[in-house]
Amino acid sequence: MIIILGTVRLPHDNIAKARAAMEAMVLTSRAEDGCIEYGYAEDVLEPGLVRVTEIWRDQACLDAHFKTPHLAAWRAEWPQLAISERRLFAYEAGEPRPI
Amino acid sequence: MIIILGTVRLPHDNIAKARAAMEAMVLTSRAEDGCIEYGYAEDVLEPGLVRVTEIWRDQACLDAHFKTPHLAAWRAEWPQLAISERRLFAYEAGEPRPI
Repeated sequence: MIIILGTVRLPHDNIAKARAAMEAMVLTSRAEDGCIEYGYAEDVLEPGLVRVTEIWRDQACLDAHFKTPHLAAWRAEWPQLAISERRLFAYEAGEPRPI
Repeated sequence: MIIILGTVRLPHDNIAKARAAMEAMVLTSRAEDGCIEYGYAEDVLEPGLVRVTEIWRDQACLDAHFKTPHLAAWRAEWPQLAISERRLFAYEAGEPRPI
């Protein structure tokens, strides 16, 4: 599996305005083949810091994700939402173990 | 490395009241040996769903984390903050690759 973790930033006051575009991105991504987890969440200590959590079955699914129209549509929204400082990292990961 | 991902829930209206205890837990955990990442964030689509993101150098660091007084203090706060539904999973993970 591949875990994607990282952050983007936007002005906290834009979160409400961004919610519809985020919801579209989250729901369409979760519906993709091989998407195990996909979520956006605002850091409780740093308003406007959005933590991205994704889990994909394999690299092929992630490659396909990057070519989707909903990803292009989401990125096209960034300038008007003042979303910036994209910092995402991929980790090869084993199976989940409850702790 | 070990990535910890998962969620806890609390009433959204308790987030503000929980912030001080969350801040103490986040900052003391980040200061631990082997803590690479530690964050709490509220899901943008599900108010009150708190996403936990942790990265630890190895299992020994994670074992030590579970024995810390700040973790015990944090858990002791849960009843009065109505924090529940703890669902955390550990993943063995490779080195980060920027994407």
